[in-house]
Order: sequence, then structure tokens, then C-alpha cells
Amino acid sequence: MNEEVKPLLLRAALNQETERTPVWLMRQAGRILPEYRKIRASVSGFKELVTTPDLAAEVTLQPVDILGVDAAIIFSDILVIPEAMGLPYEVIEKTGPVFENTINSVEDINSTTVANGQELHYVYEAMKLVKQNLNNDIPLIGFAGAPWTILTYMVEGSGSKTFSKARRFLYTEPEASHLLLEKITISTINYLKGQINAGADIIQLFDSWAGILGPVQYQEFGLKYIQRICDAITEVPIIVFAKGAYHSMEQIGKLSCNVIGIDWQTPISEAHRFSQGKAIQGNLDPTVLYADTTTIQKHTVQMLEEFGPTGHIANLGHGVYPDTPLDGVRCFIDTIKEHQFKH
Amino acid sequence: MNEEVKPLLLRAALNQETERTPVWLMRQAGRILPEYRKIRASVSGFKELVTTPDLAAEVTLQPVDILGVDAAIIFSDILVIPEAMGLPYEVIEKTGPVFENTINSVEDINSTTVANGQELHYVYEAMKLVKQNLNNDIPLIGFAGAPWTILTYMVEGSGSKTFSKARRFLYTEPEASHLLLEKITISTINYLKGQINAGADIIQLFDSWAGILGPVQYQEFGLKYIQRICDAITEVPIIVFAKGAYHSMEQIGKLSCNVIGIDWQTPISEAHRFSQGKAIQGNLDPTVLYADTTTIQKHTVQMLEEFGPTGHIANLGHGVYPDTPLDGVRCFIDTIKEHQFKH
Repeated sequence: MNEEVKPLLLRAALNQETERTPVWLMRQAGRILPEYRKIRASVSGFKELVTTPDLAAEVTLQPVDILGVDAAIIFSDILVIPEAMGLPYEVIEKTGPVFENTINSVEDINSTTVANGQELHYVYEAMKLVKQNLNNDIPLIGFAGAPWTILTYMVEGSGSKTFSKARRFLYTEPEASHLLLEKITISTINYLKGQINAGADIIQLFDSWAGILGPVQYQEFGLKYIQRICDAITEVPIIVFAKGAYHSMEQIGKLSCNVIGIDWQTPISEAHRFSQGKAIQGNLDPTVLYADTTTIQKHTVQMLEEFGPTGHIANLGHGVYPDTPLDGVRCFIDTIKEHQFKH
Repeated sequence: MNEEVKPLLLRAALNQETERTPVWLMRQAGRILPEYRKIRASVSGFKELVTTPDLAAEVTLQPVDILGVDAAIIFSDILVIPEAMGLPYEVIEKTGPVFENTINSVEDINSTTVANGQELHYVYEAMKLVKQNLNNDIPLIGFAGAPWTILTYMVEGSGSKTFSKARRFLYTEPEASHLLLEKITISTINYLKGQINAGADIIQLFDSWAGILGPVQYQEFGLKYIQRICDAITEVPIIVFAKGAYHSMEQIGKLSCNVIGIDWQTPISEAHRFSQGKAIQGNLDPTVLYADTTTIQKHTVQMLEEFGPTGHIANLGHGVYPDTPLDGVRCFIDTIKEHQFKH
């Protein structure tokens, strides 16, 4: 890929001038698409889809073909990392992920292994299939969970309202917490290197549960390990999406990543204030897409104008909700692609 | 109650000098106490406890007697307001509150009534019993949910991970949302007047789901109605606890309340920066209380020193978790009561 034809989204990620704002949606490969639901209904469960390369590739490509988004994101799950480290999980319909064994002590951590990344060969195979079928101007986004978010699942064993077990673990077992975060971090770096070898053009780190820590804890147990990953991954740009971490925006701005993802609660002006020249991704409230066309257009244009014409990757402030009307999703995407900036 | 003997907590709420920092805990009357669990086991359910004045009064007084906190908070539930407006609910063990009917349209809103407050006479009776048994130097905190949080339950019908129905309602039905918020606001003012007549010395508004709105939406659908309540309640000080609303700290600082409650994610320095001379309440991470004595003391003292000796009401950054060890709770309270400020 030479400099002249670098895809729109990658130019925006590097804060270069673009002819328009690029757009993709978190969870774009998923239940919003009838074509996805059809494939999903043909398999035994979510994990079969994740671990079957030709199916994972197919659903990865769907939103590019059907919705016209500016990037594909590999269809996978952040929890493949704990599994590769020795903690298998199931995804139970309407409940979410459930781990049979959880981490409660140093002994539990010692019984996990650092993943070398080859455990996740099925993800790389899916990515290679995607790249074979993807137009050169559409980049493929690889991803992983940030170490803190992965720790929460390994300690809690499932989703949680308060994540009090995981937060408690940091206070009661700070050294064990760091040991586990170390092992997750190295595993994640190995995994992301594998994704880049398989064709990932850009990487997003999802720190879905950043917001349940206060700023001091998040610096010590969250951002420190994200920085380690940013240091190790130099081949492609990195997007860091630390949901709920507006309290740490200044510290996030100091990371050596390329793009900061923000949720809809984060004021765009404040993200700009601390971004240190990085591009910003986000941040429409996903529930706007349930509204009528005029309302969606109004909020989308407001967002675009507040971000301005460069250094912005348009997205929602969180994953698109599965029951979002497809017309709303299309309206969001089309509004962005057709927008003419006033200035 | 004359000026000379005004209780410690009320002086702190008014940002007056105090001999030490006062302390209470959100959800202090509850499952952390074996004495509470015993009474809870003797009734059919949570709502029986809420609606039986002598039992509600007894569990309200327990933490004052057993833990030595500096305030009692009436044992009740924010959802008594939707019920008084015509939407009854049940509290289902391990699930939480469930409403049989929910709000989906203007017609649904029209079928609710503005509560005059007298529907909730059982709360006032409990408060009067508490006041008869409470030492004069311990104030009684009354409370209500903030209108936005009450709306979320009326629209969702239960708790939620994303509150996407409630957020969606603001975008799809903005006028109906304002109509409902109006009715909730007037009902809440009537209710709080009743609580003050029954002896409440100070009021806390809980906006538990403030943080799921972005700052623009929260200003329009959240803070506007909190300000209306602050304007109407002039008899006693008001604490506003808008959980997760760090993004709106500057606007919260402009409210005509007396105390700003903050969660553990909010940097204390930023709360001070925007507080406009108001007292601040909070904000230790409740999971600190699971740790050993040394760790609890360290984090509690750090918090106290960062807040400083005046204008601070010590509390957790959220309700105490039901399985918190009582020794941890006692350590937190005792550390605050014994602390000598360096300066």
C-alpha cells in the first residue's frame, strides 16, 4: 500500500487532511444486519462463529458491502485472550460470557499461561480471508481488550453491575493484580502481532470497563499497560477506546497511540483539549439512531461540525445496539459521507 | 435547634468550620448490618420494610447506634415516587425493582398523576419515629431520586445495563420526556416538603443514572429539573449526588444546592475547582473497605487530606456494598472520626 492510495480512515487516524470524515460503527458486524442473523442462526452459538474462519470473515465483510462503512473490523471477541491463557468461557444466550474458573489468588494466576498468540490462529485465518476479499481502500481493524478489562472478566467470571470483585482485587491483591496484568499484556502483544501479520491495518484497544476505576487506580492498573502495548505495536496505528474514562482524559492524551476513542458522555471540546494532536474517534449516543431521520441528521451534523473536518473518525460512542433500525444506521452513515463542512 | 448546637454534619454542609469531618455511608441502613438482616428476614419483602413505619424507623436508627455515623438517612426507596404517581412496582430478590406497567407514550404519561405527597404518609410516620429517638446532634437525612433517574425506571420498567430505552425516549419523544419530568419534579417537591414537615434536617437527591447521559442531554433533561427542586426546597440544605456526571461538574457547581456528592471516579481537585464554595460529599471507592486495616486507613486518610478540614462530608463514592465486612466499615468510620489534619 503506497502513500498515495492510503485509505481514508488511515489518513484520518494519522490526523492527515481528508476529503471527508471516515465512518465505521463499533459492533457493525452483528445483529443489526439480517444477513448476520441468518448466519448466526445457522451455527450452534456465538463462539462457533468466532472460531470458524470463513464464517467470521463473511460477517466481517457484510457491513462494508451492505452499509458502505469505511473500515472492516474483524469479527471476534475480546475474551479469546483469557481463553488462550487457560481460562475457557462460554457465551450464554441473553446472559453473556461465563467463565468456569476465575482468578482469586496468585496461585490461580500461576496456573494461567502467557499466550504466544498461535492459540488464536483461527482469528488470523479469518483476517487473511477478509483481506483477500476487501477492496484496497478499506482497511481492516484488528482489536483486543485492554488488560484491565480482560482482568475484570478473569476475576469476575462474567459481566457485572459493579465489578466490585475486580476492583476489590486491586486493593486486596495489588501485586497479584500487576502480575496478572503483565501476563495479559504480553499475551495481548503477541496476539496483536499475529493480527498485524495476518493483515490488520490498524488496531483498536477496547477498555470497556475503564470507567469503573477512579483516576489514580486507572493510571496504575489501566493506562500503564495500555502504554506498554502502544510501545510494542509500532507497525500500525492504534486507537485506544477507554469507555467512561473522561476523568483520565489528560493522561490518555499522553499515550503514544494515534487515535483516542471517546464515548458520548465525553465533551468533544475536552477531548480536543487533551488530545495532543491525536485524531479522535466517536462519539454519537447510539440511541440517537432510534429517532426519526431529521433528528439523526441534526445530531450527526452537530457532531461532525464540533469535531471539524480533520483528525476525526466518525463512530458511535459505544457499540451499536442490536435492535437499532437499519434505516437509522444508514442515515447516520450517509449523513457523514455526504456532509459538506461549513468552513 | 439553635445555631450553637447545630449538628456537625449540617455545619459541614454549610461549609462552616468543624472540629472534625462528619461521616455517613450511603446504604448504611441495610445488609451490611446483621441487625438489619434479622429484621429483613422477619418480613415478606423489602417493600414491607419500607412501608411499615416502626420497622423502617428501627433500621434507620441502627447504623447510628451500631456504627456511630454522624447522620441517619431514612430507610426508604426512590421508587416510591413512581408508585405514588400510579406505577406500582415489586422488588424481586436478586433481580431488583420491576414495574408491571411502563411509560412508552404521552398517553401513558397522561394516565399517571402528580403525587401530592400524602400517598407517602408511611415515610413521614417513619421519619417522625426516627426523630423521636434520635439524639439532637444527629441530623436526619431525607431523600428522593432526581427526576431523570426516576424517569429511567418508569420507561425501562426495571434496572438496565445500557438504559437504552430511557435514553432513546429523550430523542424520540423529547416533549413527552419533558412532560413526564415535570410531573415527577412536582411530585418530588411535594414529597420532599412532606419529609421536611416530618423532620428531615437535610435532603439528598440521588441521580443514580446521571452518567448515562452526555453533558448536553443531562443539562436539558437532568440538571434543569434538579435546579427546579433546589429552587423549591429552601427550608433545609440539599445534597445533589449525580453519579457518573463528572462531565457536567461545572454545571453541577452552578446549582443552588449546598453540597455536591461525588463518586470515586471524580477527581477531588476538579470537584473543588467547580464547587463554587459548596461543600463536597464523598468519595472513597466502596471496594477499599474489603481490604486490610492498613490499606483502608491509608486510602481514607489520603481522601481526608485531599478534601481538607472544612466543607467535606466523608462518605463512599457510592452505596456500601451489601457484603462489605463490618470491620472494614468500622475502620473507615473510625479513621475519619480520629483523623488529625496536618495543617
